[in-house]
Amino acid sequence: MVTNTLMNYTTGRENLQHWLVSEDGFRPEWLGKGESVFSLGNGYMGLRSVTEEHYANETRNLFVAGTFNKFAENEVTELPNAADLIWMEFKLDGIRFDLTQGNILSYRRTLNLKEAELVRDITWQSSNGNVYDLTFRRFVSMDNLHVIAQRVTITPKQNSVLSLTSGIDGQTTNSGVQHFLEGNKRLYDGRFMQQIQTTTESGIDFVFHSVHRFYQRESMNPTSIIKMDRRQIFFDYSDIEIPANEVFTIEKYSTVFTSRDKELNAVTTEELANHALNVTRNVESKGYENLFIEHIQAWDELVWSRTPINIKSKEMFDQLAIRFAQYHLAVMTPKHDNRMNVGAKGLSGEGYKGHTFWDTEIFILPYYTYTNPKIARSLLEYRYLSLPGAHRKAKENGYDGAMFPWESAWLDDGEVTPVWGAADIVTGEATKIWSGFIEQHITSDVAFAAWQYYHITGDQEFMDHYGYELLIDTAKFWASRLEWNESENRYEINQVVGPDEYKEHVNNNAFTNYTAHWNIQKAIEYVELLRIEKPNLFEQLNAKLDLETAEARFRHVLDLIYLPQVREDGVLPQDDTYLQKEIIDLSKYKNQENVGSMFYDYNLEQVNEIQVSKQADVMILMYLLEDLFSADVKRANWEYYEPKTLHDSSLSLSTHSVLASDLGNRELAYSLFRRASEIDLGPNMKTSDAGIHAASLGGIWQAVINGFGGVRMTSGNLRISPMLPEAWDELTFSINWKGETLDIYASHDKVVLTRRAPSIEPLTVEIYGEKQTITETFTSEVLSV
Amino acid sequence: MVTNTLMNYTTGRENLQHWLVSEDGFRPEWLGKGESVFSLGNGYMGLRSVTEEHYANETRNLFVAGTFNKFAENEVTELPNAADLIWMEFKLDGIRFDLTQGNILSYRRTLNLKEAELVRDITWQSSNGNVYDLTFRRFVSMDNLHVIAQRVTITPKQNSVLSLTSGIDGQTTNSGVQHFLEGNKRLYDGRFMQQIQTTTESGIDFVFHSVHRFYQRESMNPTSIIKMDRRQIFFDYSDIEIPANEVFTIEKYSTVFTSRDKELNAVTTEELANHALNVTRNVESKGYENLFIEHIQAWDELVWSRTPINIKSKEMFDQLAIRFAQYHLAVMTPKHDNRMNVGAKGLSGEGYKGHTFWDTEIFILPYYTYTNPKIARSLLEYRYLSLPGAHRKAKENGYDGAMFPWESAWLDDGEVTPVWGAADIVTGEATKIWSGFIEQHITSDVAFAAWQYYHITGDQEFMDHYGYELLIDTAKFWASRLEWNESENRYEINQVVGPDEYKEHVNNNAFTNYTAHWNIQKAIEYVELLRIEKPNLFEQLNAKLDLETAEARFRHVLDLIYLPQVREDGVLPQDDTYLQKEIIDLSKYKNQENVGSMFYDYNLEQVNEIQVSKQADVMILMYLLEDLFSADVKRANWEYYEPKTLHDSSLSLSTHSVLASDLGNRELAYSLFRRASEIDLGPNMKTSDAGIHAASLGGIWQAVINGFGGVRMTSGNLRISPMLPEAWDELTFSINWKGETLDIYASHDKVVLTRRAPSIEPLTVEIYGEKQTITETFTSEVLSV
Repeated sequence: MVTNTLMNYTTGRENLQHWLVSEDGFRPEWLGKGESVFSLGNGYMGLRSVTEEHYANETRNLFVAGTFNKFAENEVTELPNAADLIWMEFKLDGIRFDLTQGNILSYRRTLNLKEAELVRDITWQSSNGNVYDLTFRRFVSMDNLHVIAQRVTITPKQNSVLSLTSGIDGQTTNSGVQHFLEGNKRLYDGRFMQQIQTTTESGIDFVFHSVHRFYQRESMNPTSIIKMDRRQIFFDYSDIEIPANEVFTIEKYSTVFTSRDKELNAVTTEELANHALNVTRNVESKGYENLFIEHIQAWDELVWSRTPINIKSKEMFDQLAIRFAQYHLAVMTPKHDNRMNVGAKGLSGEGYKGHTFWDTEIFILPYYTYTNPKIARSLLEYRYLSLPGAHRKAKENGYDGAMFPWESAWLDDGEVTPVWGAADIVTGEATKIWSGFIEQHITSDVAFAAWQYYHITGDQEFMDHYGYELLIDTAKFWASRLEWNESENRYEINQVVGPDEYKEHVNNNAFTNYTAHWNIQKAIEYVELLRIEKPNLFEQLNAKLDLETAEARFRHVLDLIYLPQVREDGVLPQDDTYLQKEIIDLSKYKNQENVGSMFYDYNLEQVNEIQVSKQADVMILMYLLEDLFSADVKRANWEYYEPKTLHDSSLSLSTHSVLASDLGNRELAYSLFRRASEIDLGPNMKTSDAGIHAASLGGIWQAVINGFGGVRMTSGNLRISPMLPEAWDELTFSINWKGETLDIYASHDKVVLTRRAPSIEPLTVEIYGEKQTITETFTSEVLSV
Repeated sequence: MVTNTLMNYTTGRENLQHWLVSEDGFRPEWLGKGESVFSLGNGYMGLRSVTEEHYANETRNLFVAGTFNKFAENEVTELPNAADLIWMEFKLDGIRFDLTQGNILSYRRTLNLKEAELVRDITWQSSNGNVYDLTFRRFVSMDNLHVIAQRVTITPKQNSVLSLTSGIDGQTTNSGVQHFLEGNKRLYDGRFMQQIQTTTESGIDFVFHSVHRFYQRESMNPTSIIKMDRRQIFFDYSDIEIPANEVFTIEKYSTVFTSRDKELNAVTTEELANHALNVTRNVESKGYENLFIEHIQAWDELVWSRTPINIKSKEMFDQLAIRFAQYHLAVMTPKHDNRMNVGAKGLSGEGYKGHTFWDTEIFILPYYTYTNPKIARSLLEYRYLSLPGAHRKAKENGYDGAMFPWESAWLDDGEVTPVWGAADIVTGEATKIWSGFIEQHITSDVAFAAWQYYHITGDQEFMDHYGYELLIDTAKFWASRLEWNESENRYEINQVVGPDEYKEHVNNNAFTNYTAHWNIQKAIEYVELLRIEKPNLFEQLNAKLDLETAEARFRHVLDLIYLPQVREDGVLPQDDTYLQKEIIDLSKYKNQENVGSMFYDYNLEQVNEIQVSKQADVMILMYLLEDLFSADVKRANWEYYEPKTLHDSSLSLSTHSVLASDLGNRELAYSLFRRASEIDLGPNMKTSDAGIHAASLGGIWQAVINGFGGVRMTSGNLRISPMLPEAWDELTFSINWKGETLDIYASHDKVVLTRRAPSIEPLTVEIYGEKQTITETFTSEVLSV
């Protein structure tokens, strides 16, 4: 594994303890790590943490949520990499500022999670012996979602002369793919650089502005020349004389607006540009300090005050890890617009092209459902708004109802999974990616998440507007998807990929069949409920979905759906053939740091014939529909499947951690939590190159709250059974439950549950298996589960 | 000026004296210089000399002549940057090979002009103290135009382990513009990587192959994994153990084919790919040594044996400079295909997008006309084949005949000059580029070059097929372009840009009016000649061009065309208003190294109102139509215009050098020759970043042969009046004259002219103003001109 001692988790002191992640050295071959894990953003946009100055093999990314574009017919739509606004090149006494040259006398780069600011502190000696202190600060405002602010201070140890190139560079691409037409470039007021670019296929206008401010004791204006090149507008500033030990400050204020911005809909490009210019003028006149104060207030309200999680652990890393997860969840989630969702790499890299997977519903949504239902609802509304694409996909495949795309982009895009992937080592050709065609469980995942949201939040208005329809429309897909097996007298679901993507074209994947069955079952319940309790809504949905016919079909198929059964040894077959496949020694691939290393020896076709899993499959079924399986069955399946699971998907470890908690194995749960936490934050310097692992970060929250915190909603009821690992002394957190906030404290001795706003309505919570009725607060001893 | 001591012109020894250009150090901020001036190629393709490993701010370019593509409607067509085949990344004992890290113990990179091979020799100490000798050799075959060969040897000073990533990277762009659709990637025979890409608009298929060979004492195969990513196919080789002081050799053979290749026309993409794969198999089995021998033989035949130029100079640089010019002229000229021409930056950079300007006809073509007429003819045939676009341009502008585009790309593209350029420092907007609209002298430049070619080569067949038609069709344009000035009773040409692009929208630019007049005059001569001597061809062309009507128009306008007249002081007005404009102190801009520095203080509109010229304008008229002006007039105009000329165009210095020779000022001519030679080859490390200066390299040849050699064709007659500068002892060269080769020797004392193949037909040559009739050889004293 590529590990090092650059990552430093203990630089936070006093009120910043467990809030800082630092990198204590500059290594040009590990740029990707810092770019991803230190990335900034606000859900509107995500900025990879590249340095101001260029280095080889860097990946300069700025993504704006929802602005998908397709380069060509044979490629899928993706989030285009917007112009580079961070770019600055410095010459200090005639020598380019370049950390690969001269000597680095001191270096620390720190992401402050609490204030969402990135700070790079360097003392650099250039090749001519001159020494300079440089500090680079930047943030992407959580208050004004369009703003990026930078402040650079340079303090030379000798009289020095600085020149600077800085501006807007629209030459950026997605690994060579250019998504923008070149548009107008223009300078306003002699200072405000403007560049307009439009996406080639989706026709979205982007308007970029940058403006500088300079201080040397007081505000000043260096000699400057405005320049334009292809997709670039920038200033060359020169002959800036800085006396020894004096501070020279550069501030750069940049803004990003697009014609996809909801609040600006239906204006012309010119109006958009004028609006953006005016905002930029205001932003610049406000200044760094004021913008920063508003920014940290917004962060506090959104995350840190609303959803504090305190872990008192012997391991410094743990508290940091959960905050790191919360930080990135806030950075990646487009909470401002229900037409957008979370990408599998958030907004931190090109990986997975900004597409939304089941990662949202199964791994990320629980965090929001339990802590910020408004955001959870917005993400579910995205699926509702995506129904046209889901209907189209169903129709194209010969089915009814809503067949959600495996990968989802803009609302009406439908299926956007790429068709070709990595090299097949046997044939020499690209491997076909089947997920977009036959990984179909996404449809029940969406239904499950809506149901879960409803029961945890009690948001009846959501159900009336979106939830019932989603549950029934998805069930209609499944009811049409089933295949009748005459000889077995049952309905089957054949030729699918389940959660374990190392098994393609399998029949009766347990996860798929069980969740499809559950989906239809819920739909029957809701059709019944609507008919009786909400006749108007029933009529409305009946007109849309033909409930009568649908219900008849649901009732006909339900009990005929084949649900693979637990064997005598307790093992639930993952699919019809898994248990008959070859068993090989997997230690080489389980121990290796490189995920996917098995493909250096086998192609996918060969892997398909071995009892090996990429990730939790049966196990995640037993997590989601936990009431269907006994503890013994869960344990038997863990013991059978975990040794065959390579955890090559970042979605796997956290699920296993929660399940280990469920099975009462706290230390195993803890070690899996640690491994999951280290996927991005840990010292492996290569795994996050293409972006952070969004689902894994949601999974970390689940490992803490659903795992160690033992929080679960089953059949609409709340269950809490905390069980802390050895290393932890205390865990404190809050959850939302049907509109109220519950504060939970857990130690090894006791659990205290407090209703923040006490109510006359008693609250029933199952604590360690016992139903408790709580009015204000309740304290329990810790019991083993 | 950014100068340094990295460039070393004296590394060639013995038979390689004056053949080597070296760079004696690695400076990451000066990558562009080496990439351009060391660039390799064969006219089919041009490869910028980037390093195998990546560095920040590098520009990795591979261009294939004639493969133009347009990214979007609002951008002009350009040569797309093809896949990077040179790419290799090395890890030596776990540390990335990166010259910005560790210590460079020795370094030299050398371009061998004679053998057209680039060699990089390095001893590198990595940050862990290990030391390695590395040698990187490569060439782009002049024998098989599709082949790039690389050989890398690594000799560690200690037992070492190497890993290597190498393959085909199609993520390259033109400054962010992606011209290719992603196509198939495939591995054949477990070794041959293939990637196919198609241009987005012009639909040209590119087929790339790369294959490796490895040697450690003998041929071996390291552990390898084939990988694919977006537009990439590559191998990861690992665990290569190299004992101390043993040589490990990596060879990489790459080929490039496109569906625009003439010899492969009309085959399917699949056939093209199969053909390319088979060629690659043959190339790989042939091996580096054999390919290299064929390559240097081809260079010898094409250039060094055919066109030797020997300068015995006190300055080492001079001999090297002329060879450097010949080298790059061979690298940049697509001699294999008459549908292609020379770009203003050759194939060495993105500057000017691969477009052809008057640079070809006026600055480059004389070299070929005098030394390799077949190539000159091919370049002229390109203009003939471009007539459809020239007709369209004329029609679109309301004119007749052939109006050649200011910038020319593919045959039927017509005008491809971009419309928007650099920032206007006053308005803050992009400056409009008027050349494509109104820089019209290109049309008479083409006519002039065809006429010059004919009289120097005597190629009647060219005239019959192309020349007459070109001369008459261009004259038709001019005849229609003229504007009648009723009050002055004359035809004028108004609202143009002449050669001096700092004067836009001028009336009666002398260069334009005189050459247009000349063009019409020649057309009248040829129509007459055809009618009398070639009645069949006359009829043929009459049917095409309506010669009768055209001739009437020609005769009507000829004497009414306004030709600006020399003033009493001998100055010929550059246009109607130049001499009335403000005269300012230009020393700040004439002395500065940065071309275009005047635009830091003025915008183009303001520059337009000052007596300042970008480049030779009146002076180049007096060079081309030299018989029209007396020596006194030439001198007067030199003295008036040269001080007002910034030489901001690389086309200016060499012309001035030739003219200084004409005026008998040998030392001025020499100093201008030196300045011209240093544009690319000199130690200014920034001027060639966007590519070498093609016209300037042709101009260097003219400064030597037409200037110091005093060679000139006037009215169809050969004139030779050598006049060497002080620094030179001898100049020896050959020229082609009407099908035979003349060898010329000149010293300060005597001139010897020898007909290589003596003929009974006597040859008349004007030597120092005296007509001499030569049968075998002729010796003259040197006389002042």
